[in-house]
Amino acid sequence: MASNSFGNLFRITTWGESHGKAIGVLIDGCPAGLPLDEAIIHTELKKRSPGKNSYTSPRKEEDTAEILSGVFEGVTTGTPIMIVIKNHDVDSSKYEPIKDQMRPGHANYTYLKKYGLFDWRGGGRSSARETASRVAAGAVAKQLLKHFGIDITAWVAQIGEVKTSVQPNDLTAFKQKTASSPLFCPDENATHEMTSAIDKAKEEGDSLGGVIQFFATGLPAGLGDPMYEKLEANLAKAMLSIPATKGFEIGEGFFAAAMQGSEHNDSFTATQSGIATKTNHAGGTLGGISTGMPLTGRVAFKPTSSIMLPQETVDTEEKKTTFQLPEGSRHDPCVAIRAVPVVEAMAAIVLADAILMNRNAQL
Amino acid sequence: MASNSFGNLFRITTWGESHGKAIGVLIDGCPAGLPLDEAIIHTELKKRSPGKNSYTSPRKEEDTAEILSGVFEGVTTGTPIMIVIKNHDVDSSKYEPIKDQMRPGHANYTYLKKYGLFDWRGGGRSSARETASRVAAGAVAKQLLKHFGIDITAWVAQIGEVKTSVQPNDLTAFKQKTASSPLFCPDENATHEMTSAIDKAKEEGDSLGGVIQFFATGLPAGLGDPMYEKLEANLAKAMLSIPATKGFEIGEGFFAAAMQGSEHNDSFTATQSGIATKTNHAGGTLGGISTGMPLTGRVAFKPTSSIMLPQETVDTEEKKTTFQLPEGSRHDPCVAIRAVPVVEAMAAIVLADAILMNRNAQL
Amino acid sequence: MASNSFGNLFRITTWGESHGKAIGVLIDGCPAGLPLDEAIIHTELKKRSPGKNSYTSPRKEEDTAEILSGVFEGVTTGTPIMIVIKNHDVDSSKYEPIKDQMRPGHANYTYLKKYGLFDWRGGGRSSARETASRVAAGAVAKQLLKHFGIDITAWVAQIGEVKTSVQPNDLTAFKQKTASSPLFCPDENATHEMTSAIDKAKEEGDSLGGVIQFFATGLPAGLGDPMYEKLEANLAKAMLSIPATKGFEIGEGFFAAAMQGSEHNDSFTATQSGIATKTNHAGGTLGGISTGMPLTGRVAFKPTSSIMLPQETVDTEEKKTTFQLPEGSRHDPCVAIRAVPVVEAMAAIVLADAILMNRNAQL
Amino acid sequence: MASNSFGNLFRITTWGESHGKAIGVLIDGCPAGLPLDEAIIHTELKKRSPGKNSYTSPRKEEDTAEILSGVFEGVTTGTPIMIVIKNHDVDSSKYEPIKDQMRPGHANYTYLKKYGLFDWRGGGRSSARETASRVAAGAVAKQLLKHFGIDITAWVAQIGEVKTSVQPNDLTAFKQKTASSPLFCPDENATHEMTSAIDKAKEEGDSLGGVIQFFATGLPAGLGDPMYEKLEANLAKAMLSIPATKGFEIGEGFFAAAMQGSEHNDSFTATQSGIATKTNHAGGTLGGISTGMPLTGRVAFKPTSSIMLPQETVDTEEKKTTFQLPEGSRHDPCVAIRAVPVVEAMAAIVLADAILMNRNAQL
Repeated sequence: MASNSFGNLFRITTWGESHGKAIGVLIDGCPAGLPLDEAIIHTELKKRSPGKNSYTSPRKEEDTAEILSGVFEGVTTGTPIMIVIKNHDVDSSKYEPIKDQMRPGHANYTYLKKYGLFDWRGGGRSSARETASRVAAGAVAKQLLKHFGIDITAWVAQIGEVKTSVQPNDLTAFKQKTASSPLFCPDENATHEMTSAIDKAKEEGDSLGGVIQFFATGLPAGLGDPMYEKLEANLAKAMLSIPATKGFEIGEGFFAAAMQGSEHNDSFTATQSGIATKTNHAGGTLGGISTGMPLTGRVAFKPTSSIMLPQETVDTEEKKTTFQLPEGSRHDPCVAIRAVPVVEAMAAIVLADAILMNRNAQL
Repeated sequence: MASNSFGNLFRITTWGESHGKAIGVLIDGCPAGLPLDEAIIHTELKKRSPGKNSYTSPRKEEDTAEILSGVFEGVTTGTPIMIVIKNHDVDSSKYEPIKDQMRPGHANYTYLKKYGLFDWRGGGRSSARETASRVAAGAVAKQLLKHFGIDITAWVAQIGEVKTSVQPNDLTAFKQKTASSPLFCPDENATHEMTSAIDKAKEEGDSLGGVIQFFATGLPAGLGDPMYEKLEANLAKAMLSIPATKGFEIGEGFFAAAMQGSEHNDSFTATQSGIATKTNHAGGTLGGISTGMPLTGRVAFKPTSSIMLPQETVDTEEKKTTFQLPEGSRHDPCVAIRAVPVVEAMAAIVLADAILMNRNAQL
Repeated sequence: MASNSFGNLFRITTWGESHGKAIGVLIDGCPAGLPLDEAIIHTELKKRSPGKNSYTSPRKEEDTAEILSGVFEGVTTGTPIMIVIKNHDVDSSKYEPIKDQMRPGHANYTYLKKYGLFDWRGGGRSSARETASRVAAGAVAKQLLKHFGIDITAWVAQIGEVKTSVQPNDLTAFKQKTASSPLFCPDENATHEMTSAIDKAKEEGDSLGGVIQFFATGLPAGLGDPMYEKLEANLAKAMLSIPATKGFEIGEGFFAAAMQGSEHNDSFTATQSGIATKTNHAGGTLGGISTGMPLTGRVAFKPTSSIMLPQETVDTEEKKTTFQLPEGSRHDPCVAIRAVPVVEAMAAIVLADAILMNRNAQL
Repeated sequence: MASNSFGNLFRITTWGESHGKAIGVLIDGCPAGLPLDEAIIHTELKKRSPGKNSYTSPRKEEDTAEILSGVFEGVTTGTPIMIVIKNHDVDSSKYEPIKDQMRPGHANYTYLKKYGLFDWRGGGRSSARETASRVAAGAVAKQLLKHFGIDITAWVAQIGEVKTSVQPNDLTAFKQKTASSPLFCPDENATHEMTSAIDKAKEEGDSLGGVIQFFATGLPAGLGDPMYEKLEANLAKAMLSIPATKGFEIGEGFFAAAMQGSEHNDSFTATQSGIATKTNHAGGTLGGISTGMPLTGRVAFKPTSSIMLPQETVDTEEKKTTFQLPEGSRHDPCVAIRAVPVVEAMAAIVLADAILMNRNAQL
């Protein structure tokens, strides 16, 4: 069961509350012999850090991950890797006045119904802070994937009503463009429009949603397990486990519904490096198993639930009341932006697991 | 691992190949004491049966499920329920000439890469025939859910470019309309347009995609487990494990990306039956846990990969060739239609599992 | 949690009741490419068959296993292998008069308390008949192990108070002696004494317990996973899951408690085929991981619970009554004898799983 | 997979190496609403602490467990409970000279073969220090069990050749006697003889094995799941996962093999508190499910592998050498003694899991 775990052979378990002493992740099943660069974990965490600019939450999370086990002389030993991230800059007092109010779009009502009680400090376990643990685990998964020649990148494809359809051609250049955008958007024009949209939403005390696209290259054909461990099934689960997500697409996604078979089917062709498909409408899998083409899809995020506008709600006594975030509250105007490294991390964890699982496909 | 299993406490494992002796499903974890009506399994299987009319495959699958264990005197005993569906009307000879060709949109290439060999008869394990096992298991899950007052329904919301946005108001009437449509579409006008579109596609030797919406009522608040067993995460995995699926949405799905927080947030309000939300943009969950509002979402299906038009491809020797389905081949012009009971089944299995899991949330 | 499943990557799930339509086993995770000889399954099932001679139950179980899936042209395909064994020769009527009585040593009382109801026909799911499914699965596991050079054998080491301490020297000869004994005991003198003991117990309407020893050769060093998937931990679970078992030992077992460290520690030494230990008190593992020495241990079985002597008990109404098996009841005077192939099967399943798991130990 | 995890619904995962920064345990699945007394964790850890007297290792482990998550205002919240125990008093330098030697009875050879490398500092992950994490988790499980009226105790039943067969009659008195013995042995005379035996072994630079008995009361009938999650199967796995264990018995264990059915079968009888058995040879289960009688069994421990006597061995280069522990090495003359709280902890974890699993047995 273990509802805080994800993955079969490369298995992560995250723990910790937003305003508790620490959060972290335990990775069980990382093969022995992988040189692990702790600095890469910090680089990844930094991508997710709030407070970088006005487009993300001003909460200062100086997240320094500490590896407590599983690594000896810089190399993984095959034993569990425990990574701890201490919580700093936590002041729960401002949550005190609103702790009995059902927060629209948040999970305190549902947690209360489920558990009979709730750690209301900063959203407790349901806080998006948990995603820092995913990013730390993803940084380990990415290093494992690199060993197998697999690379994962993600970017902002939509914020509010602004969309971009740019796709990687030269992957290195594409990644640089993404990194240089304050919104992780590889399209400069779109970035400009998106920032305007965010500025406007902030001014109005409101928030925006967004879409993130992921793109993985270097996969061999054959990864992913029928029936219920299909690559896209596990990716879908991984993505929909991220807070604020509302949708998942592989390949053409919902657009495929309006296509015809003759248009959507990718023709097989022989290339120098073996069989490939001419197009990649499928997004890199057939029957849940990788084709060797880039694995790509999209994830939809709802607009940030925390907004400065007053909202109607009720309290634990079912009494009507108005929910108003305290002045000076810190939140992202659009959660999708900081979710880019989280989407990359979850994709990496799914692929790391698929690679290990696949070792048992044949005799 | 068990990649042919789905669910934690209410756990199904399907088995069998399209042209093997039989297919079936083993259900482990169904609580004892549930009166099980075998006829309901047949009713559900019939919904999925091909050959009903010209809009589905003419293959005659007289699927009669036989319960081999786990039920005594009409009541579940708590032991594994094994349901077997014999394969009839199988003639593998027509697959012989195409067995070495990579079938565009199909999984024979990826299975070959994964396993080194492939049961090519009728698609083997990768055939959509496997979904009959899911429907049988779903029929058991539905009976379990009924005991807890939960009802699930699904319908065709889009075929090709024809969409309908009708939603259930009077659920009984809505279900009747859906049942009376040859396409499981509750909107009469849309049904009419969809049938025209299908006729046209068939005439052209082509196929169409579609979207199915599911809708579950009667859920208590509190179902679903953070972090990685969120209700929508498991639904996403369940749906993306169905052959030919390309996308999943909960609530507003990808539309949420273009909404603002003030618009998307559902206000809490007090009702006679407790706390509820005024709107249901979320689609029935917050933080992965049910709110008590209807649980609803959509699943995208690609157009049927089997089309009568000739297609470029290569064979196992990487030699260029043209793939042409043999005259008289049987396939659905739009797989989404027959997938309606499959989507219902997978939703039912996810909810049955969530109900059992939730029994351990509190002391 | 699937309490009817065992194993992680090589995973079996058994199903079926003693007097239901059939029993069987589903194997998920057997690698593709293994030539599977169906005849070996029958050979193994025959070892377990009752009715061979007067020392086992006269119930005629003409167990013919049928493979319904997962094998194509004689080779495993990587998809689930479903094996069905039909139930014949079942007459539930004689259980009717005793169905409300708590049977001493049997599980009808505990099943009733757990499930609220009980399939009383022939012991239902709790019948030792379930072990036929284990043997069928073990026959597949053995063929997988053979591919890796691993062989498993087991024998009767004790019946009642008669013990033998013979150990394999020449394995082939040893196995022949075991096979030629009606009691699977490689020691001819002991066999003689054991048969006398059994005859006496039968005459008295009583039953005997026993001990079975297993012995596996050809294991590479490195199998088994710390912490909780230690080889001996999984063997212990596997063996204690067999009906009527009361104890498990690896290596010296309980005798180790009375030994001194200098005596019990096995010295390492260099041999032509690498590092080995001079002695093998450990029984083939250190820290839960195989040393490469033979893996050996013992399993204790209680005396058969079904005896012809009258026994005090109560019925479902808690009324005092005398339990008396109907004249002509069929049962084994000593369940340990027929459990020999079951112990082999469970050891094989544990090792098959360990081999697959071990593929992920290193990068 | 997750070989460092144990349990299904009440699930522990331990992590950390003997000479790393810390060790600890993550508990996932503890129901919300349990008042958790941190002091009880320390009390349990103290029982396991070395250095109490001359019969245990002089290593000073001032184990202070810190709860980092999952508890809010003294009550469990249903989210993962992370407990960290820092490593103090570690000096790895004395392991340096022997790091290339295969240590007889230890796991460095098998870890090397499995992982290709080994954290040799203090035994790394294979050190018995890991059992402190189990004891911490067990202290949580015990508090959960107490809520359901279940109590677990364990004691030393044998050290070397000295055995005691005392059994609890007055449980409170029995536990006091056990607690007052430096060896956790409730039999004063046996304690005396055992201490002499230990003194003698220490003098000789040698070590002793032992047997621990566990005893759980207050179980309702109906706990434990057929087929492969039998109560005794999970107990067997739990116990054989403890370092240095060689055997497990439930009820009469191996003695049952020499008993007759008429002697071993426990007669059912009606009591004021419902159906019970007159005797308890079974040790508290039938068919893997609890009868409501005390659950009792024994665990065999080999003599401590670390002895002061020189031992023949080879090094990583397969060169013959003599293994000699450095002067002043710290180890237990008999590991069984400090394992008493570990056995209690593992039994508690098995039962906590069984209680949660059992909530889904009936509709």
